[in-house]
Amino acid sequence: MLDQVNLQQTVTKEEYKKQGKDLKPALSALQQPLKKAKLPVIILFEGWGAAGKGSLISSLILNFDPRGFQVHSISAPEEREKRRPVLWRHWLDLPEQGIISVLDRSWYQEVSVTRLEQNLADSSAIRRMADINSFEHLLTDGGYLILKFFLHIGKEEQKARFDRLEQSKNTAWRVTEVDRRRNRQYDKYYKVYDEMLEYTNTEYAPWHVVSATHRRSATLEIYRTVLDRVQSALKQREEKAVHLTPAPGVILPGDFPLVSMPKLADVRLNEKLGKEKYKEELDVLQERLGELHSKLYRKRVPVIIAYEGWDAAGKGGNIRRVAKALDPRGYEVVPIAAPSQQEAARHYLWRFWRKLPKDGHIAIFDRTWYGRVLVERIEGFTPPEDWQRAYREINDFERQLNDWGAVVIKFWLQIDKDEQLKRFQNRQNTPSKQWKITDEDWRNREKWDQYEIAVNDMLQYTSTEFAPWHIIPSQDKNFGRIQTLQIITNAIQQRLDSNEKQNK
Amino acid sequence: MLDQVNLQQTVTKEEYKKQGKDLKPALSALQQPLKKAKLPVIILFEGWGAAGKGSLISSLILNFDPRGFQVHSISAPEEREKRRPVLWRHWLDLPEQGIISVLDRSWYQEVSVTRLEQNLADSSAIRRMADINSFEHLLTDGGYLILKFFLHIGKEEQKARFDRLEQSKNTAWRVTEVDRRRNRQYDKYYKVYDEMLEYTNTEYAPWHVVSATHRRSATLEIYRTVLDRVQSALKQREEKAVHLTPAPGVILPGDFPLVSMPKLADVRLNEKLGKEKYKEELDVLQERLGELHSKLYRKRVPVIIAYEGWDAAGKGGNIRRVAKALDPRGYEVVPIAAPSQQEAARHYLWRFWRKLPKDGHIAIFDRTWYGRVLVERIEGFTPPEDWQRAYREINDFERQLNDWGAVVIKFWLQIDKDEQLKRFQNRQNTPSKQWKITDEDWRNREKWDQYEIAVNDMLQYTSTEFAPWHIIPSQDKNFGRIQTLQIITNAIQQRLDSNEKQNK
Repeated sequence: MLDQVNLQQTVTKEEYKKQGKDLKPALSALQQPLKKAKLPVIILFEGWGAAGKGSLISSLILNFDPRGFQVHSISAPEEREKRRPVLWRHWLDLPEQGIISVLDRSWYQEVSVTRLEQNLADSSAIRRMADINSFEHLLTDGGYLILKFFLHIGKEEQKARFDRLEQSKNTAWRVTEVDRRRNRQYDKYYKVYDEMLEYTNTEYAPWHVVSATHRRSATLEIYRTVLDRVQSALKQREEKAVHLTPAPGVILPGDFPLVSMPKLADVRLNEKLGKEKYKEELDVLQERLGELHSKLYRKRVPVIIAYEGWDAAGKGGNIRRVAKALDPRGYEVVPIAAPSQQEAARHYLWRFWRKLPKDGHIAIFDRTWYGRVLVERIEGFTPPEDWQRAYREINDFERQLNDWGAVVIKFWLQIDKDEQLKRFQNRQNTPSKQWKITDEDWRNREKWDQYEIAVNDMLQYTSTEFAPWHIIPSQDKNFGRIQTLQIITNAIQQRLDSNEKQNK
Repeated sequence: MLDQVNLQQTVTKEEYKKQGKDLKPALSALQQPLKKAKLPVIILFEGWGAAGKGSLISSLILNFDPRGFQVHSISAPEEREKRRPVLWRHWLDLPEQGIISVLDRSWYQEVSVTRLEQNLADSSAIRRMADINSFEHLLTDGGYLILKFFLHIGKEEQKARFDRLEQSKNTAWRVTEVDRRRNRQYDKYYKVYDEMLEYTNTEYAPWHVVSATHRRSATLEIYRTVLDRVQSALKQREEKAVHLTPAPGVILPGDFPLVSMPKLADVRLNEKLGKEKYKEELDVLQERLGELHSKLYRKRVPVIIAYEGWDAAGKGGNIRRVAKALDPRGYEVVPIAAPSQQEAARHYLWRFWRKLPKDGHIAIFDRTWYGRVLVERIEGFTPPEDWQRAYREINDFERQLNDWGAVVIKFWLQIDKDEQLKRFQNRQNTPSKQWKITDEDWRNREKWDQYEIAVNDMLQYTSTEFAPWHIIPSQDKNFGRIQTLQIITNAIQQRLDSNEKQNK
């Protein structure tokens, strides 16, 4: 793509003033409709060193009200960032609806300079670029507008700029040995940048390669592009809002290896475990889990345990039996309730990304991202085309966790309708437990059949080889607890064994 | 304090079971009233290596519902944390109202092991401990309950525990050379811990030194202490809620060197600046500021610029003229509106701490922490005793910023009532500006006289030598802009000069 850029592009000072006079107020005027339409915008800047990212970003943001934008400068990842998936830190920076996020460098560092300087294998680089494409696709599907600028200058121009910077005491420190080396190896970087631009130039998030030799023409081009794309995104929103029709009902789990699951109705619930036997097995399994936790910690394997299940199925008590075996410095229980303001204003996966554990740590989610295809589906919080797309999105999310090295374990705690009624009544009649039962629980119970359909769909479409579902018969709580502990310890043991084999 | 602990303290297994049977459900039952009373609780654990922090924390939190607590493990600060004031990262972890935050190690690391191992001067250690005391005082004044546990074991006991850990393959990695060295130098650490405990054992946040030789007795003591202190805090809240009376009206700026300020009514507003002259000075000052920004960045000096002023006084335009001179990678404009849910649920200073710049960076606050003594005072959002205490709290906050090395610059943009009316009407009558004027602005205008009293109080009580107020006549916007730029550039230049002198 780079060879198609006319690096000589320029405009006169008069032309610049004239066009700027129209473009600047038009840019300023974007923020109100943008806020009203709740459109979140990501504008990222990549490009050669000394191409002028700083000053072009500065010119752009001066048109905006500080309440409507934020700037993030991306530098090398810190320790806590290195211990999470590559995209984790970028997820954290996602803007709210109605806000413009300006990125000075971005996730593309990981597939350009990092690719070269850390000698990333081509296959890894391509996988990372594929991950980036699916990240951007996910965001644009989720309503985000993404603008990507690449500021292009030639080798000689870059060298001349470095020379000029070095001449003044105030700016000389900006030019490092790394910059100089990159300039000398301009051709190698050119190739990597070009591949990156080609591979990630998608319909939903196209690149805008800008000739940055002349500042005025670059500024105008950026202004115009931002204006055009935001305006057309706003227009699209309006049209979509008018023509909102239910989706055709096609559910696509995406291209993932699925594991077949039984229907809930076919799950046997009559298994029981005596108190003696329970205590005995509990002790053994908790001790084993404690030891595995310690190994995980040393080997830096992250573990993600997801709990879903009927109300009163016993998630809390089950989680407690698992937590008891763990060192509090190495695990966290993440309770998921209705999203807060700031969570609701971002992509639905944002709050789960935020809560990913460090490697070597365990995160236990008490309810999960599957709310998207359960409560949001049934309560109509989310239009059908959105929750239907979520099966694929969630599978892809869990694939990324698996690629990162995480053990992903998912439980559905199963009881029948009568058992739920008994437990609800028991809560109702026990003063110390009354807070546990709310009107909402009763309302959800009325929708049992709808939920059963949704749960079966979920189990069918999101039980993958890398993140399979486990249905836990929890009519007898003790039986369910022992089952989950067994599954957790086995899954961790297997991963540790297979990692060890690989390292041999 | 350590010598008063009976390290032989123990209980029988039966006694432990018996007492635990009462204490555990009582602890579980705390969370509902705690949530209802919106009481935020901090429980921190310090103590000797291998004293059993992990397993004691584990036992404690198993009594709580995961929705009601969080655990933070404090390790050595990361880069971004080192570039902020020492307490910054602890501010970020503050729990919401109704939530228990359990800390595995805490800010006391900085005045104990760090003190010894980084050879901190006694005077610095004492200042840090004073800062900790005032941090904890601020929090308890702000409604937080703080419980501090120190787990004590003897030198021989510690050595025996390390030996035992080393015997098993699964736990041997936990014992490091540092641990062994600390054990050999037990007496040195003992002295430092003891000083720390003495100095920071305050009425509002007392230490509980627990004999940790025997696990059962330690567990029970922790259970009992948590139960007692939370219950009595809840009781106090109830009583306070009943007897809430207006405070006696005593305003205490605290023990800080104050700079005398004129009353707003005495500020001359008739100064003007011609367009030519303005443009000329603006160019010169912006260029100078740009250069200074670059120097700050290299010298890692943080700058905090606070803007307050009447509605329509021109804060936005003024800030824009400052921002224009700055590299977007090195500054952030922080607009302050009404607090979000998560902000309102924490100490009022939390959201400002969160937004502190890295050293070498500039943060420009568009409205500030002074909302506490302006809008919150006038609208009655905050009881008198709380906003009156804020003068001292804010002075202390800014003193900490100054100690950290920050340049703190505060502006009050002054116009008169007629000018405000003119500007309001202009906004009302210009379609592109209408969004800038709201009913609230008109309501605030009606309270002009009350605000004038509050502003005069604020200027009188919080203009300190280390963070003085500057009243900016902004009747003529250009005049105001040049004034702020002059003050900012001078303040930065002075700091750079004096730092240079010190380094010589």
